[in-house]
Amino acid sequence: MASKFMKIFVIGFTLSIATAFAQDNKNHSEFIDGVYKKCLTEGTTYQLLGELCEKFPNRLSGSPGAEKAIAWTKEVMQKYEFDNVFLQEVMVPHWVRGEKEQASIATGSSKIDLAILALGRSVATPAEGLTAEVIVVKSLEEIENLAPDKVAGKIVFYDEPFAQEFANTFRGYGASVQKRVAGASRAAKLGAVAVVIRSVGTGDDDFPHTGSLRYDEDAPQIPAAALGAHSADKLAKILQKNPKAKLFLKMNCQTLPDVLSYNVIGEIKGSENPEAIIAVGGHLDAWDTGQGAHDDGAGVMQSIAALQTLKSLSYKPKHTLRAVMFINEENGLRGGLKYADLAVENNEKHIIAIESDAGGFTPRAFSFKGADSSVAKMQNWIAYFPNNTIDAIRAGHGGADIGPLNKADGTPVAGFIPDGQRYFDFHHSPADVFSAINKRELELGTASLASFIYLIDQEGL
Amino acid sequence: MASKFMKIFVIGFTLSIATAFAQDNKNHSEFIDGVYKKCLTEGTTYQLLGELCEKFPNRLSGSPGAEKAIAWTKEVMQKYEFDNVFLQEVMVPHWVRGEKEQASIATGSSKIDLAILALGRSVATPAEGLTAEVIVVKSLEEIENLAPDKVAGKIVFYDEPFAQEFANTFRGYGASVQKRVAGASRAAKLGAVAVVIRSVGTGDDDFPHTGSLRYDEDAPQIPAAALGAHSADKLAKILQKNPKAKLFLKMNCQTLPDVLSYNVIGEIKGSENPEAIIAVGGHLDAWDTGQGAHDDGAGVMQSIAALQTLKSLSYKPKHTLRAVMFINEENGLRGGLKYADLAVENNEKHIIAIESDAGGFTPRAFSFKGADSSVAKMQNWIAYFPNNTIDAIRAGHGGADIGPLNKADGTPVAGFIPDGQRYFDFHHSPADVFSAINKRELELGTASLASFIYLIDQEGL
Repeated sequence: MASKFMKIFVIGFTLSIATAFAQDNKNHSEFIDGVYKKCLTEGTTYQLLGELCEKFPNRLSGSPGAEKAIAWTKEVMQKYEFDNVFLQEVMVPHWVRGEKEQASIATGSSKIDLAILALGRSVATPAEGLTAEVIVVKSLEEIENLAPDKVAGKIVFYDEPFAQEFANTFRGYGASVQKRVAGASRAAKLGAVAVVIRSVGTGDDDFPHTGSLRYDEDAPQIPAAALGAHSADKLAKILQKNPKAKLFLKMNCQTLPDVLSYNVIGEIKGSENPEAIIAVGGHLDAWDTGQGAHDDGAGVMQSIAALQTLKSLSYKPKHTLRAVMFINEENGLRGGLKYADLAVENNEKHIIAIESDAGGFTPRAFSFKGADSSVAKMQNWIAYFPNNTIDAIRAGHGGADIGPLNKADGTPVAGFIPDGQRYFDFHHSPADVFSAINKRELELGTASLASFIYLIDQEGL
Repeated sequence: MASKFMKIFVIGFTLSIATAFAQDNKNHSEFIDGVYKKCLTEGTTYQLLGELCEKFPNRLSGSPGAEKAIAWTKEVMQKYEFDNVFLQEVMVPHWVRGEKEQASIATGSSKIDLAILALGRSVATPAEGLTAEVIVVKSLEEIENLAPDKVAGKIVFYDEPFAQEFANTFRGYGASVQKRVAGASRAAKLGAVAVVIRSVGTGDDDFPHTGSLRYDEDAPQIPAAALGAHSADKLAKILQKNPKAKLFLKMNCQTLPDVLSYNVIGEIKGSENPEAIIAVGGHLDAWDTGQGAHDDGAGVMQSIAALQTLKSLSYKPKHTLRAVMFINEENGLRGGLKYADLAVENNEKHIIAIESDAGGFTPRAFSFKGADSSVAKMQNWIAYFPNNTIDAIRAGHGGADIGPLNKADGTPVAGFIPDGQRYFDFHHSPADVFSAINKRELELGTASLASFIYLIDQEGL
């Protein structure tokens, strides 16, 4: 009898666990279906991003545009009646482009204008510009092998194409971007007077792609700029015919003193464990070219809209949900660093920090940096997402802005991974405008973030 | 000793199986990495599709454009030195649009022009056009409930929006397209003189989206056309203010006698089992608006390029690989039907038929209709594909053109599933042009097809 009773008990217990699990599964699936439907039919991300791009297209750290965008995103979250909306003070670098850059090359009796953008943090040319012969190199490695007398007094042209061979464009970017970051100082050490690079971008067009450089302390600071792909083609062709042709560059950029700026934060308070935070964010600053639509207007608007979507579905989170608009990702990361400092100082407890900073494209995956057991657990969640939205949750990185928090206190971090094939057509270039955004793709990103936050809030890591 | 020997033997045997398996895995991974790299750096799909779109933008079945496109694709495969390139004769419907359609509505003293396209197979209006009052309905269901005297003598306007709520746009299309297919006859039975529909498309623009209708045998044939979304908005607004406003329609389309056309087929002969065929295809015909870039120039060029990619990597297939350009998918499916008839007649043995007819977008998945055991087997292959390319292989459908073969002899079929979020922005509309194609996305589709074919050739189903 005891054994029979035990058997019934075990069967009953197993069934009740199975039923509860099935119920959870059904509830999660239904809730997440509702999130996607809400975003696809009544989503506000697209309209918010349109407004951000139109009103504050130029919002590089320290600029008037950034200041206004900070005030506006705060207002947006206040209008949505988030429980708590506040700013975090942070000093940011203040680099300005000045008047539009000029580049041209004389060939025979004619002058060919080239499309360029100064690289972020670059110094200016002399006020009247500079003119010099050009030496073409294919890579950072190639320039190391050149004798200084081949380089001294010249402009170095890094004519390296984007590494298209990788299915993952971010790997291609990683393999191609070092010349942008380190090319100026390497050339300067050999006596170069300036550098131009073939833009680190995938498009077959003439949009120059800017981005930060880093000057070494032991090298003179020389001007550096990116050329549009077609302009780089033209320059290469002209130099092949006439290696003595001289390139003219005029750049007016400069670094002004640091200025006070802010991270913008909005919270929905948790009902059970309000001290435990699930943070989601992107960066509000953007390069002063295009409108920062994909990089990273999409991510900041999705972060706000993800919380607003849960709110509009009357979801009462167990833990505090926080949308964070980080400042200064592009040329300093000061916002991310300050956020981490304050989290430690205030003894905040983050369950996770999630970043959306890979464009407003169709969702594919989340990457996660934390315990292996969490990755395994999350992989069971893939079934809750509609097919061809979130198809994978993999071990990987979080994002630039949340890296410092992960480093400071070990907070697990996750990155939203939309499809990346078109990202580097737009990244850091005048092509990164609102018309390059597809509404459904953008709203599906919001739905994916909201669903992921919901699952973490419900199930933990 | 025997036991010890046995143990060594078993361990050795197990190790050798494991090693062989690991070797296969490694070989497959390496080969597929090579396929993706080849397509991303030296792929020809984009260039081929550009040529198809530029030279033969209008290639509706029976048109001179279709005839020339047939000759050209045959030449392309001959130039690539496929082992066998041939045509299959098939009689196809010959519907022609005639002069550009006109639509306008008088409101007060002014006349508003509306963007329209006749639906495929539609009859014309009288030569001078027709003018009538309009009755607005939201769906096919709604018109069933109307008394004939509300409809008789009027133009029915099906003002139903695209079902945006589905994450899968093809589900949204399925939920929205019935008015296009059946709306004319339903309205005609109640005495309507013509119908216009809000285009079945996802874009916020004024491109009308055409597509086939089907006339019931027991209803008069009345003219039917699709309005661009913005034109549909305008019309709805005008009719709300003035329900008596009259719509003018002038359409010159007609169906001419069937004409002789062709499926185009190219083969690479198998080295071990040449009688067993792995077919991959798309449809060469396209609506006579735009350039049929996504629908389905992408699919046919990918099919040729997938085989050419394997050839250029010196891959010797075990089975015969066949690229098929089906004719007449859009308004008859005669090519697909003929292909199946001939396969049965000639006693051909297909291992599988694969179709790419969902656009030249970033790859996501394959759907498969066949044995459950095959789906389970294929799911182990996902690890061979680069992350964020083919992330899933699921039970599902093949494609329209290969459906008849599946029905005729049970051949398993598979469909290539690229991301579908943008497809219905372009589908059947003047927006479906080559400039809407992203090179990397298109070439990744080719790589995915070539890799899938390779795995089937190596591993079977």
